[in-house]
Order: sequence, then structure tokens, then C-alpha cells
Amino acid sequence: HRVRLADTGPNVFTEMSERAARHGAVNLGQGFPDTPGPEPVVASAIAALRAGHHQYPPVPGLPELRRAVADHQRTWYGIDLDPAREVVVTTGASEALAAALLALTGPGDEVVVLEPYYDAYAACVALAGAALVPVRLDPPGFTLDPAALRRAVTPRTKVLLVNSPHNPTGTVLPPAVLREVAELARAHDLLVVSDEVYEHLVYEGPPHQPLAALPGMAERTLTIGSAGKTFSFTGWKVGWATGPRDLVEPVTAVKQYLSFASGTPFQHAVADALRLPAGHFTGLRDSLRRRRDLLAAGLEAAGLRAHTPRGTYFVTADIRPLGERDGLEFCRALPARCGVAAIPHQVFHTDPEPGRPFVRFTFCKQEAVLEEAVRRLATLS
Amino acid sequence: HRVRLADTGPNVFTEMSERAARHGAVNLGQGFPDTPGPEPVVASAIAALRAGHHQYPPVPGLPELRRAVADHQRTWYGIDLDPAREVVVTTGASEALAAALLALTGPGDEVVVLEPYYDAYAACVALAGAALVPVRLDPPGFTLDPAALRRAVTPRTKVLLVNSPHNPTGTVLPPAVLREVAELARAHDLLVVSDEVYEHLVYEGPPHQPLAALPGMAERTLTIGSAGKTFSFTGWKVGWATGPRDLVEPVTAVKQYLSFASGTPFQHAVADALRLPAGHFTGLRDSLRRRRDLLAAGLEAAGLRAHTPRGTYFVTADIRPLGERDGLEFCRALPARCGVAAIPHQVFHTDPEPGRPFVRFTFCKQEAVLEEAVRRLATLS
Ligand SMILES: CSCCC(=O)C(=O)O
Ligand SMILES: CSCCC(=O)C(=O)O
Repeated sequence: HRVRLADTGPNVFTEMSERAARHGAVNLGQGFPDTPGPEPVVASAIAALRAGHHQYPPVPGLPELRRAVADHQRTWYGIDLDPAREVVVTTGASEALAAALLALTGPGDEVVVLEPYYDAYAACVALAGAALVPVRLDPPGFTLDPAALRRAVTPRTKVLLVNSPHNPTGTVLPPAVLREVAELARAHDLLVVSDEVYEHLVYEGPPHQPLAALPGMAERTLTIGSAGKTFSFTGWKVGWATGPRDLVEPVTAVKQYLSFASGTPFQHAVADALRLPAGHFTGLRDSLRRRRDLLAAGLEAAGLRAHTPRGTYFVTADIRPLGERDGLEFCRALPARCGVAAIPHQVFHTDPEPGRPFVRFTFCKQEAVLEEAVRRLATLS
Repeated sequence: HRVRLADTGPNVFTEMSERAARHGAVNLGQGFPDTPGPEPVVASAIAALRAGHHQYPPVPGLPELRRAVADHQRTWYGIDLDPAREVVVTTGASEALAAALLALTGPGDEVVVLEPYYDAYAACVALAGAALVPVRLDPPGFTLDPAALRRAVTPRTKVLLVNSPHNPTGTVLPPAVLREVAELARAHDLLVVSDEVYEHLVYEGPPHQPLAALPGMAERTLTIGSAGKTFSFTGWKVGWATGPRDLVEPVTAVKQYLSFASGTPFQHAVADALRLPAGHFTGLRDSLRRRRDLLAAGLEAAGLRAHTPRGTYFVTADIRPLGERDGLEFCRALPARCGVAAIPHQVFHTDPEPGRPFVRFTFCKQEAVLEEAVRRLATLS
């Protein structure tokens, strides 16, 4: 049967998680925490179940969750949103992304992304029938050259799909670069889809700056957020998209035909989670910063060259100092070889070549687990 | 901005539910129960939360849920499925449908549906860029003429999208018609997407017969099921698709880029639900049969002509005996006029004309609620 996606296999996260399970490896591949989010949030989900919230929520999300999303953006970023028209709750950031690309792009449109790009970006652009235009983040620091971004824009460019903090590299675009992104979008009247699911995981330097907060950007930017990443409940799959009504409305229209609406009890709980005191957000960040440093040091000690990221919960390592050349082969072998799983960058490249030496390890695991991984990695060299 | 769906507004279920809320109407529009599913299943979801099942499930679903889906099909229908390859868990039947159409159809393909058709069918066919080919179910009984179905098939037909029990009419295709559907599919080597979410709601006559159980059909049929409908947890959004590996695999590949995976704690609970004793399924059916008869009698008493369905939880009424001609106008006015909400058939037609006199009322509400609705409807004439 003809199928729309060229590759109908499981994605790289599934493949590497399965290899990890098969070999009893410490799974530093797929980005999910091994500790649950805050206990009061779990209690709130249980309370919602006990209270009988078992039926469809409204398609755009529970009003109290939409209010909480809007309040969160006002508190943290000074962004004002109308919860009734400018917020839509989705089945995780994944669905927000799929609905955005299906709603806003199609055949003949180009979508510019930062390469290496999260695999779902390429898949959703393909599902929409649009064309992917990657702009390389340059190693060793995985920085974005604004001139390269400018060169990627053509008359067919419809959307700049930007993620800062950036998965998989951990790059946080500095304020000057964000301003250049915004200028480009304004100059060419482009839509911006800004995937900011790691908004609370910026470890040093200027704090997270939403693209929508820059001049002239609110009216053209759809911002994506995630309770999975911000509160460590990746299996609940509650996310959202925010922006002007003329973007949120078509995204909602498409989304109602993807999952329709989902997770009623979790929507209640996430509304409570978004109102947690600032200490939750900074506490998670500080704890992850320590774990980042632990993992980066361990990777260096094991003979890899670690790139310590400013954001996300991923460290990228260059495997060449180990005499290795191919990250995909390396990652396929790693669980059996030393009992650790990781994700190769090259699957996030259109031309795999420049991604080949780089491998991503997550540090969203308990310190003891990271220490064990580091011990195992030390057997590599 | 160019958008892919012609209509970017909320769908008819959202519109009518909002009107119902605004006027304090009894909402017999959107099909969701007003009582929760079995208490042990709620307890099982709570236990899963307490046990800390908060992170991503595997993309194709928890192994124990896939096993439970396979066992359920063996127990009820004698269908043998490999849980590892022939079952995928989805974010409700909605996502199964979206992923199936996006994975299996595209520009140049035709998808045959029974008209009136559930609105998501048309939307997902449009998202896939395929063409919708409706085959009318004829009033007053909303029966399918197999000759009409045969005439709808062309060399471009890729998928027969069949739903029996049928939403919105409640039609259950009789065994002879199912055999003709299967014969047609085999003769033209068509794929069949069989939406069987109301499989347990067949009130009399021969029991539900999955299309996949007919000769030569297992290898070409993707069957869709729903915990929302079968266990009265529509807000949990757990569904599944089953079928041969060469259909389940591309559906899984697309689905991993829609919601990725979802509802980990609910997947644990639904696995338990599928193992409930037969009494759960027959008990729900028997209770809904009584409520169906209550509502149909009440609609007749109120001066409408009721079509008592063999399946689903929807009664269709002809509004012409009331001197009414337009179901959409009628449904928009109904909440204010008498405090009841319903769904017009005509929005489920490509040419609205033949659907105009018909209106759908759900009876998945408590008897006292239905009695109150009937009292209110009696003020119409
Ligand atoms: C949705 S699966 C992958 C999780 C994730 O965001 C990552 O590991 O990059
Ligand atoms: C997914 S919203 C509509 C619920 C339903 O299946 C119906 O009312 O027909």
C-alpha cells in the first residue's frame, strides 16, 4: 500500500528505547524523567478522577486550564492572552505541532527549521505536503548564523519553525539572534511556530525569551508549550498552543479532527500545576543543572567530547575522540556494549554527514542513575 | 492565512454543546454518557497514578493493553491478532481514524463513506488530500442499498470507510449486506477501514459482526475500537486500531507524529476494563435499550417521527410532522425554545438537502434526564 511517510518504521526514540530495554541499559535516549512531577499535581489528577471528570473536555481545553496557561505567560513573560480565543489545549506538544503544520502549510509551502531538527518536524511537514528547509546549527557550539537563516528564506517560505531551547543540541538562541529571527519574520511576513517546550530549562545567561514577546511578533507567532516537559508528566500528554486568534482558530479546527480533545482529568491537574509557586520551576531547573554537569563531566571522563548546553535536558557528545565515526552505529551498539542508550544526531539531518559524529544523552534522570551510566560509559575507552 | 480545512470553525458538536450550556438545555447532542464507567476501572486508573505510571507509554501502546484488545477480539468474535504487530493504541478512535486516512490515502484516492457521515470522516479525508465519495443510507430506515455502494466504486477507490453500527443513523448493516461489502472489497482489492466503536451497542437481531471476520477480509481491514464508547470514559481518549501488520505499521508511523502516544495511566485502566465480565457489556446494552425506547416514545409523543435504531446510542427524528423543514435551524433554536439540544443530520451530508428533515438525539443519559428532555420536548407541538 502506498503510504505517505517514506519511513513507516518506529522512530529513533522507540528503536533506542527498545534496545535499552532488551539489554537492561540505562536509557539516556528518549527524553522522559524517571521521577514523577510534583505530588500535589498527582493528587489533583486523582481528585479529578474521584470527582467524576471522565467525559470529553471542550475541544479547545478546559476553561480553567486555558486561563492557567494565559496567567502563566503573563506572570513569566508579560504576554497578554485572551484565554477564550488565544489558547488551545492539545494532546501534548506533538499534537500542537502536527495541527499547526497541517493547518497552516501545504503543497508549495516551505518550512524553515534548525538542523539537526526534532524528527516530528520533518514528519509533520511531510504529512502536510510542504517542503522542509533546514538551516544548520554549527558545531562545536551549535550556534545559529543569522545570515544562513536569511539565505534559507524564499518567496515560498510560509513558516519559520524555531525551537529555543533547541532539541537535540540544547542551544538557547541569544537575544541578539532572536531579534534577527523576528526581524526576518516581519520583513518577509512569515508565520513563526515557536516550540518552547523547554522554556523553564535554561541554566545560565539571559532567561528564556519567547519569540512572541518581541515587537511585531505576537500577531504572527504560534507558541507551543508542554506540561510533560515542564512538570515531568510526559505520559499525560497535555500541551498547548497560544497565539493570535487567526492562528489558534485553524489549529483548533484541525486538532479537533486529530484527537478531538483529551485527558480531561489531567487538564484539571495541569491547571493546578501551572499555578505552582516559582520555586517549582526554578527548583527543577537547578536540579537539572547539577545533573547536566554530572553527565557532561562523566562523558568527558569516558573519553567523549561533551557539549554542555545552555538549555533542555540533553548533552551532545562528539564520539570522534573514541575513534568512532558513525553515531547511529554507535547508538545501536551502545546498549549491548556498555549498558547505556543514547540518540544519534544524524537521524535529525537531511544530509546525515555533518551529524554523524554527534550523539545526544539526556540528563533528566536521577543522579544515582546518571552516576551508574557514567560508570558504564567509562568502560568504553 | 491559507488553511487546509475549508471551515475553520468549531464543529457541530461543539456548537450545539455550547448552545446547550448557554440555555441550560438537556444536552442530547454530543454523544457522551452522563454517568461514569465502572467504578473498578476508575480505581484502576487511580492505582496507576499512585503507582507512578506518568511517563510515555510505548508508541503502539502498553503491551498489556494490546494483549487485552487482542483477547477481547478473540473472546467476542473469534478473531486472532498478534498483540505485538496487529494492534495499535491511539488517542481515541478519532486519532485512529485520522492516522488511518493520513497513512493510507492521499491526492488521487477516493474514500467511500456511508452518508450521512460522521463529520471527522470528511475532515480527515480532506486533510489527507483525498476525495470523499458518499453513498446514501435511505430513509425512513436508513438502509444501505448494496447496488448503490457498488456504483460508488471506481478505479480510484482506495478505501471503503464503513461504520456499523452507524453514527448518526443507528443503522446496523445486516449480515447479507456485510457480505456484499466484503465481496466488493475483495473484488476490487480495496482497503476497508471499519469504525466499530459501537460494537457493543446492538439492541436486537444478529449480534455485531466485525467486517474483519468475513472471508478474505482480515488481510485488508483496519478495525477501530474505543474505550470511550465501550466503557463510558469519553474524556480519557483511549482507542485502538487492529488489523494486518502492513496496515497497522503505517498507521502507527503516522500516529507517532500526531499525539506520539498518550494516557499512560488510562491505558492501564482500559486493559483491566477490557477484561470485565460479559455482564458489563450486556448490562450497558440492556440499560441503553430501555433508554432508547424511552426516548423514541417521548419523541413520538412530542409529535416527531422517531426512527428506533438497532445500534449506537442515537435516535433520529423526522421533524416534518412538526411543520419544520430545516434541521440545522431547528437544532440552533431548540435549546432556547424548549431546553433540549440535538444534532442535525444535514451537516453530515455533502448535499444537505436529503438530510434536512432529520435530527439526531442521544440517549446515553440517565433515565431521569431523558424523562426531563421528553417533558420539555412535549412543549414543542
Ligand atoms: C515524543 S518522544 C521523544 C521525547 C523527546 O522529546 C526527545 O527525547 O527528544
Ligand atoms: C468526538 S465528538 C462527538 C461524539 C460523538 O461521537 C458523536 O456525538 O457523534
